Amino acid sequence: MSFTRPEPPYYAVIITSALDESNLDGYAAMDERMAELGRAQPGYLGRESRTAADGRELTVLYYQNAESIAAWKQHPEHLEAQRRGREAWYANYHIEVARVERAYGFVRQE
Amino acid sequence: MSFTRPEPPYYAVIITSALDESNLDGYAAMDERMAELGRAQPGYLGRESRTAADGRELTVLYYQNAESIAAWKQHPEHLEAQRRGREAWYANYHIEVARVERAYGFVRQE
Repeated sequence: MSFTRPEPPYYAVIITSALDESNLDGYAAMDERMAELGRAQPGYLGRESRTAADGRELTVLYYQNAESIAAWKQHPEHLEAQRRGREAWYANYHIEVARVERAYGFVRQE
Repeated sequence: MSFTRPEPPYYAVIITSALDESNLDGYAAMDERMAELGRAQPGYLGRESRTAADGRELTVLYYQNAESIAAWKQHPEHLEAQRRGREAWYANYHIEVARVERAYGFVRQE
């Protein structure tokens, strides 16, 4: 895992998405700006993200609590990014807000 | 998204993992067998999975409830697969069990 999680409970936002490759004007700059703003959001913990060869993304954003997620969703610049995303950049997306109840792991001891 | 979700609440198991590329004897056959057994598990809903270029995987398995997850974790063949995974195939893994509370999405209308 790419960052240190706190003990549960905490929150995960699971995002599956596909960009519309024919219409990405302005996307890269907005994506970078949202990542920067998102990292500065109170309660933001970290993220895991992978992109398949066909462009479908799977991202999990982690937050301390549900209030952090609601505040970020309503951030004025983020609202504008969401509007432009639906208008132009995304073919589809699906978002799930989930409460992490348990977590455990394994690291090979050399 | 690659399958139809029910209305929340339902459960997600978020798995970040990295294989030990030097030691994958028997892994592919076991992985296929576990996928087959896992799909047949009562309460299993579906999965999302992406692998990064460096081999790090991000997988989300979806289940109707926490009892389905607990039953699958204790399945005898799955217990043996977990043991061999820790002994040989995995460099590391991290598993989070989360209750999906809300979900929403967007699909571009052509």
